[in-house]
Formats: sequence, C-alpha cells, structure tokens
Amino acid sequence: MKTERSRLRRLHQRGHYDHESIYQVMDAGRQCSVGYVFKSAPYVTPTIHWREGNQVYWHGSSASQMLRAANGADVCLTVAILDGYVMARSGMHHSVNTRSVMLFGRAEKVPDELKEAKMKNMVKGLFPGRWDILRPATKQEIKATTILSMEIDEGSAKIRTGAPGDDEEDYALPIWAGVIPVRTVVDAPIDDPRNLPEMTPPDHILAFRG
Amino acid sequence: MKTERSRLRRLHQRGHYDHESIYQVMDAGRQCSVGYVFKSAPYVTPTIHWREGNQVYWHGSSASQMLRAANGADVCLTVAILDGYVMARSGMHHSVNTRSVMLFGRAEKVPDELKEAKMKNMVKGLFPGRWDILRPATKQEIKATTILSMEIDEGSAKIRTGAPGDDEEDYALPIWAGVIPVRTVVDAPIDDPRNLPEMTPPDHILAFRG
Repeated sequence: MKTERSRLRRLHQRGHYDHESIYQVMDAGRQCSVGYVFKSAPYVTPTIHWREGNQVYWHGSSASQMLRAANGADVCLTVAILDGYVMARSGMHHSVNTRSVMLFGRAEKVPDELKEAKMKNMVKGLFPGRWDILRPATKQEIKATTILSMEIDEGSAKIRTGAPGDDEEDYALPIWAGVIPVRTVVDAPIDDPRNLPEMTPPDHILAFRG
Repeated sequence: MKTERSRLRRLHQRGHYDHESIYQVMDAGRQCSVGYVFKSAPYVTPTIHWREGNQVYWHGSSASQMLRAANGADVCLTVAILDGYVMARSGMHHSVNTRSVMLFGRAEKVPDELKEAKMKNMVKGLFPGRWDILRPATKQEIKATTILSMEIDEGSAKIRTGAPGDDEEDYALPIWAGVIPVRTVVDAPIDDPRNLPEMTPPDHILAFRG
C-alpha cells in the first residue's frame, strides 16, 4: 500500500498503510471524491462509494461523460471524515481531527452481467433487507447504470485524534485549548407524502445509524 | 459561471449557477476536495476551505509538494454535504439529498505579506474573537504556511432536496418510501488536559454551531 506516491511525507505518525485501517475509514465515510484527468484538466466528482472486500465501487448514470472518462483511467479516490476542531494556544497549531483515505488506482467498469448484484450489495450494505422488498430493477434501469470499481492497493489512511499539540512554552499561557467534537447524526425518517396510508417505516429504516 | 464544463448535463433542474447559491453551499460545508494534475496523474486533497467574497482559500505546509504543485495549476474544487438518504420504491430511484459545489479555476499562491491577514480571517470566520487571544504567530510560522486561492468564477451548485421521485405506477406499491435525514452536530467542548486550572471554554467556543 505504501508507495512513493502514497507515503505521508509530513506528520508521518498519522499515516497508516494497512488494509484494516483503510477499510475502517472507508466504511465510516459515506461520501468520497473521485479525481481524474479529462482532456488534461482535473475533475473531481463527489459521490457515494461502497466496498466489497478489497474493491471499492461507485456508480452513476451511463450517460455521464465523467463516468465514461473515468473508465480505464487513473483515479485518485479520497474519503474524509471531520471529527472535531482542535483549538490550540497559537493559530499555527489549530487543526482538525479527521480520518481520511487517499487511494490511487485505475477505474474499471463492472461488466453488465454483474451490475445488478453489485447494486444489490450497495443497498444491502446500508439497509439490509431493503433490496428484497423493492420493485425489481428492469433491464433498462440496469443498462442505464454504470458502476466503476478499483482495487484497494496503493494508498494510505491519515488519522488525527486527541488534544492540540502546542509548543511546549505555550502551555503556560492562560488560553483555553481543547477539542470541539463534531459528528453526523441520523434523524427520524420522514414519510413520503405519497406513501399508501398503512405504510410505516420498516426495521431496516429504523435501525439505520448512518 | 455556467460554461460548457460546468453545465449540468443530466438532472439539470438541480443545477444552480448564481454566486449566491454557490456561496451558500460553500459556506455550509467545512471540508472541500481539491483536485489537480501532477505528473499527468490525478490527485485529490481533502482540506478545509474558507471564502472571502468571491475568492476561496485553502492552506497547508509550505513543505507540501502537493501545495507547490497546485500553485498556478488548474484545479477542480468540490464541496459536498450529505443531507439525507432518499428511499424510493425501486432501487433505481434511491438517491441522496445533497448540496454540492464544483468549481474550476487556477490556484494562486497568496503573497507572503497577505498570509497573516488571511489566516486571521480563516480563524475569525469560524471562531470570532479567538485569533486575538492567541499567542501571536511568529514570522517562521507564517513562512511555514502556504495559502492558495482561487476566484469563484466557473462552476455550479447541485442541490437535491425532498421526497423520492418514483415512476408513477410504483406509487401504488405497498413499499415504505421517504427520506432519512442526516446532519452534523457539535458536541460539548473537551478541555485539553494541559489547560491551566482556571481555564473554561470562552464564548467563541460555546457559541460554535459547526
């Protein structure tokens, strides 16, 4: 996982190169950013990813020129989770507690015959049981969806936790320092106004923790 | 703001090209992703941005080869906020409620003489009053910090809100549909264990809402 490109050059104590650390951050973050080069210019697409073993997946419309451009191309995929604001005694040592992953690799289109199974896995990963109660996907819907995938090979996780790290002499200053934690919460589900009258949120919705 | 590159090709009803819409999303999102091309390969850096008028700023260590590579280069900067999971009656129409911005432009290094004022603005934007009580920045600290900036010119905001949009005939199905909202919350500040005994969180910390 550690390569010349993925090695953390600064603050290297925050770097992790093992699959387990990378998986943990990827699975905790719901959104990713996929960067690629299109006509010599940089593009970043914010999207939703999911992981199956050592493969990461993302998807979109088959009509998307961005997905078409990414197929077979070098990509850089990042996941970044903000956990808190680190308030130090000097501006310089202010920071953020974050967990992030940066991966490098080549995106590959998932073959047509595997797309439905992959879409099912995406839904299942977040909402176990939901896929089975849905109106089944049509051939046209599967066709209209493109799924890209990349092996999790070259990359790193970067994790900062805990209190500020101030200059030793600054700890004597009468300045409040500490961490302001932030986190994502899930609120109660909102019924679609067009639900049939008897519908209530099923367990796979109520159990969702984000 | 609307160009061939920044124009939404699909779901164009979700696209906004006015500065006010773009500012609102950028100011609500704390993290951004900066994409650029380095040695013909894509790189994405998750970082913290701030905005002053029509300029967006981000910063890092002057030793960072990524920041050095981005200076003067074409970049694609994105901000993406997840607001909820849109649970439809078919897999195809599952979606997420999100607010995102995608900007294209050229990154420019902030001149040395302006760096301290910009750093102050960054801290002030989030925590009004904090900068003034900190141990002042040293020349060496200012030198060790590189700030990049980009004009907010070419780009778009993409916003999805509200209930699922299902195929008309699927509304008759006995499947619960709706939205699971998510949001970021700020928890109570955690004192640095090395704070002086009399220190309590000041108002600019207690007032922080994320």
